[in-house]
Amino acid sequence: MSDPSGNRLPLYSQVEDALAARIASGELPSGCQLPPEESLVGEFNVSRTTIRTTIQNLIRRGFVEIRRGKGTFVVQPKIVQELTELTGFVEDMQVLGSHATARVLDKNVVPASVSVARHLALPLGTPIVQIRRVRLADGVPLSFDETYLPEELGRKVMEDDLESEPIFSLLEQRYGTPLLEAEYLLEASIADADVATALAVSVGSPIFLIERTSYSTNRQPVDYEKLHYRGDCIRFKTRLARGASKRPTGA
Amino acid sequence: MSDPSGNRLPLYSQVEDALAARIASGELPSGCQLPPEESLVGEFNVSRTTIRTTIQNLIRRGFVEIRRGKGTFVVQPKIVQELTELTGFVEDMQVLGSHATARVLDKNVVPASVSVARHLALPLGTPIVQIRRVRLADGVPLSFDETYLPEELGRKVMEDDLESEPIFSLLEQRYGTPLLEAEYLLEASIADADVATALAVSVGSPIFLIERTSYSTNRQPVDYEKLHYRGDCIRFKTRLARGASKRPTGA
Repeated sequence: MSDPSGNRLPLYSQVEDALAARIASGELPSGCQLPPEESLVGEFNVSRTTIRTTIQNLIRRGFVEIRRGKGTFVVQPKIVQELTELTGFVEDMQVLGSHATARVLDKNVVPASVSVARHLALPLGTPIVQIRRVRLADGVPLSFDETYLPEELGRKVMEDDLESEPIFSLLEQRYGTPLLEAEYLLEASIADADVATALAVSVGSPIFLIERTSYSTNRQPVDYEKLHYRGDCIRFKTRLARGASKRPTGA
Repeated sequence: MSDPSGNRLPLYSQVEDALAARIASGELPSGCQLPPEESLVGEFNVSRTTIRTTIQNLIRRGFVEIRRGKGTFVVQPKIVQELTELTGFVEDMQVLGSHATARVLDKNVVPASVSVARHLALPLGTPIVQIRRVRLADGVPLSFDETYLPEELGRKVMEDDLESEPIFSLLEQRYGTPLLEAEYLLEASIADADVATALAVSVGSPIFLIERTSYSTNRQPVDYEKLHYRGDCIRFKTRLARGASKRPTGA
C-alpha cells in the first residue's frame, strides 16, 4: 500500500480503517464473510502478517468474528439506543426501525423479595405479580425482562396478551396508570445460566442490566423491572451538562 | 424460626432477609466473616439445609462470597454513582466520601484512530495525546481510563502531575477550556488482558465501559475518554421523565 498522503498511521491501521469503513457503509454487510486473506493481501499490497494484525484488531473492535471452521464474518453492529427519556422496548425498537416481539416465559403471583419490596414501596413478602419475557428485535433475543407489578394491577395485566401488547401501553391506556418518570440503576453484569438460556448466549457473556422503577402520579411506584440486555448487541447514549457549580463564573 | 406475623415468605427467605439487613446496616461490616453455619442454625432455629440455601442466595445477590479454604465473607456493596451531570472521577469520589488517587500508566503522542478521530472531529491519523491512568477509590483500582486530547492542549496536560491533578481541573482552571457538556456511550463489556491487568481483576470480569466526549464552547470536542469501570464494584443511577409525546393528554 503506497502512502502518498504522508499519513502517519501504520499500514495495518490503514487497512483496518478501510475495512471498517466498508463494514460501516454496508458495502460489507453484517453476516457476510470477509474476503480471504490472499485476496486482501493482493488488494492492499501488504504482507500476510499485516492482514492478520488487521483482522485481530477488527475482532477486538467487534467488527468481525471468527466462526470456527467457517471463516471470518462481519458482525452485526451494536444498536445505539437513546437513554434520555422513559421509553418502553416497543417504542425503542420503533425508533431504531426494528420489529419488536415478545415471548412470555412465565407469570406468577409471588411474595416480594427485599429488592422488589423496596422498589415498589411495599412490605416485604407482600404478594406481587412477576412476569418474565424475552424481548426480540427482528427475531433476535435482545433483552430478558423481569417485571414486578403490585398485585391488583398485576393480576389484570397477567390476563392480557403479553406477546402482542406492551405492558407500558396496558398501564397507560387500559388501566389508567400514567407513567411520569423512572429511576434507573445501570450495571455491567455477566450472564448466569438462567439469563444465558433466555437470551441464547453463553454463560459469562456481558449483560447490560437496567433496574428500572417507574412512577405514576403522586410519586407512586407502579412497575419495577430488571432488564437484562445482551451486552454484545447494544450501547446506550445520553448527553449530560456540566453542573452550574462546576462551571467557572468568569471567562 | 416461628412465624407469628403470618409472613408468607419461606423460612430461608426470612433468614436471608435478616442477614441482608444486618449487612446493609453495617452490623455485619464488609470484609467480615459470616458466623459459622452451626451458630446460624442455632440462632434462627432452622435446618442446616435452610442455612445453606440462604447463603447460596446471598452469594447470588452479591452480599457475600466464599473465599476458598477460608469461609464466607461479606462483600463490599457496590458504589452507586449519580449519572445526571458531567463530572470527573475526583468529583464523583468526593460525593461518595471516597479518597481518589491516580496511577499514570503512560502518556504518548499517537495518530488518531477511526474512533478517536471521529469523537474529536479531527482527520484520521492526526497526532493526538493519549494518557492512560488507573483511578483508585480508597486505594482500590476502580477505573482504567484512556484519555485522548487534541495535540496542542494534550502536550500541555502531559507535562502536569497527573497523579495529583485531575484532567478536568487542568482543562477548566489552568488551560481556559471550560467543559459545558458531554456525550456518553454506555456499554457492558468484559475485561481483556490489558484491562484485567490494569484493574487487577480476572480476564472476563464484567466491565462498565463509558465512552465520553466532552465539549467546550462552540460545541468543540476537547476530551474523548474510554472509562473502563469494574462492573462488580459500581452501579450508575439516573432518573428519566416520560416524554411529552408519550403522556396521555386526557385523564
